Amino acid sequence: MRDLINIVKIGGNIIDDEQGLASFLKNFGAITGKKILVHGGGKLATKLAGRLGVEQQMIDGRRITDEETLKIVTMVYAGYINKNIVAQLQANGCNAIGVCGADANLVPATKRNHPTIDYGYAGDVNSSQLTAGSWQLFLDNGLCPVVAPITHDTRGKLLNTNADTMAQEIAKALSVVYQVNLIYSFEKNGVLLDVNDDSSVISKLDLSYYEQLKKEQKIFAGMIPKLDNAFAALNSGVQKVIIGKAEALDELITGSSGTSITHE
Amino acid sequence: MRDLINIVKIGGNIIDDEQGLASFLKNFGAITGKKILVHGGGKLATKLAGRLGVEQQMIDGRRITDEETLKIVTMVYAGYINKNIVAQLQANGCNAIGVCGADANLVPATKRNHPTIDYGYAGDVNSSQLTAGSWQLFLDNGLCPVVAPITHDTRGKLLNTNADTMAQEIAKALSVVYQVNLIYSFEKNGVLLDVNDDSSVISKLDLSYYEQLKKEQKIFAGMIPKLDNAFAALNSGVQKVIIGKAEALDELITGSSGTSITHE
Repeated sequence: MRDLINIVKIGGNIIDDEQGLASFLKNFGAITGKKILVHGGGKLATKLAGRLGVEQQMIDGRRITDEETLKIVTMVYAGYINKNIVAQLQANGCNAIGVCGADANLVPATKRNHPTIDYGYAGDVNSSQLTAGSWQLFLDNGLCPVVAPITHDTRGKLLNTNADTMAQEIAKALSVVYQVNLIYSFEKNGVLLDVNDDSSVISKLDLSYYEQLKKEQKIFAGMIPKLDNAFAALNSGVQKVIIGKAEALDELITGSSGTSITHE
Repeated sequence: MRDLINIVKIGGNIIDDEQGLASFLKNFGAITGKKILVHGGGKLATKLAGRLGVEQQMIDGRRITDEETLKIVTMVYAGYINKNIVAQLQANGCNAIGVCGADANLVPATKRNHPTIDYGYAGDVNSSQLTAGSWQLFLDNGLCPVVAPITHDTRGKLLNTNADTMAQEIAKALSVVYQVNLIYSFEKNGVLLDVNDDSSVISKLDLSYYEQLKKEQKIFAGMIPKLDNAFAALNSGVQKVIIGKAEALDELITGSSGTSITHE
């Protein structure tokens, strides 16, 4: 049987919440076996940009990454957030190593080329070049990669990359070698039927139910890219995708909390 | 025979000089065999602190690292500088991986405890805990570590650490396993007899000559910690220490340029 690996994405407000993050990292550190943590950037980059007077432009919820913004996200994501998480995991007895997609060429990417919108230094992952091999070196030697959402274009330029997508692409590539659980943890209890009712968690969601809920416009628009990613991951060999509250990480892993996304 | 490894420290003005750095990284990327690059921070952290209105206090050429300054150096050293170097080395065909001392617990350290001066979050390397083992995983698998001068106290806190010292401590630890060349590359041609004459390079410096020059006050004060470090490294098993101009990296490695520090 293939080894199990838990790939956990944290994002949203937990990154900005010092105590919440510390408690999450304690739980994450305690997960046995192979694991990877992928983190987003929270609001720290936006805050730093504000202090530096660098104006931030967003289109459809995506940051436009100009040269100055690229510097800021590289500093905040791959520097401040990544290394603080690593230090805390090390203190929790988890042998973490902080990386971004450029390190060891772990996540090759291409600058986004959009017909009408110039996203600046935004990176799209080159799925076909992302292989399990370079990750195995770490995982098979007891190291836990902590991944910042920065990639490179393999020609010397760094690129700002969506952390959800990175988690999904890594999960897909590793499913060739391992049995992969992909866990999206954030501030909500899971996928909600009513976005204002935190107890309306859908505990199991398969593709036909998802299509039905989308048709009935019962899925919160912000969740749709996450769920589309989740189903794409399942189709590419990932065994289980779970979405739920970061504070309940243990229960997400055992499947007793959050929303489990399954084939059927 | 043991494998040779070149451990190169770059620092000073080269970090701030985009073209100079690019040309240095091309040369570094082309070095065959095992290698490690340790980088300092240049003036970028000071500049960012200025833009953020965080006052910088220096005592004896060492930065006092308060909480805000720790954030800045973590962002600039471990984020911006480290990942840009990695991306450029990757583009040059060198399989670089950016790390700081917290990653994989590569460089355990302790918060400096000084009887009269509070250096803040400054780290001193725990030599006895720094072992070759965790570095070998990277080096024996074709990866080139790029090291930012940030360490951790193994209790969750990051620490600002002198890059020269880190290079020396890594060199000492690795000399148990490899034949180590330690190269300090900076903006000068080497150790100069006359600090204002760039052609007055001392090509070979042994301990008795060094003691004599120090007695005659012919060694530039700023070089003394570097040279003390160099002789300490030699005493701990490092085979050769070379000090010279970053632009002449190839010649430093072959010993045809710069100052070679030797036992005799």
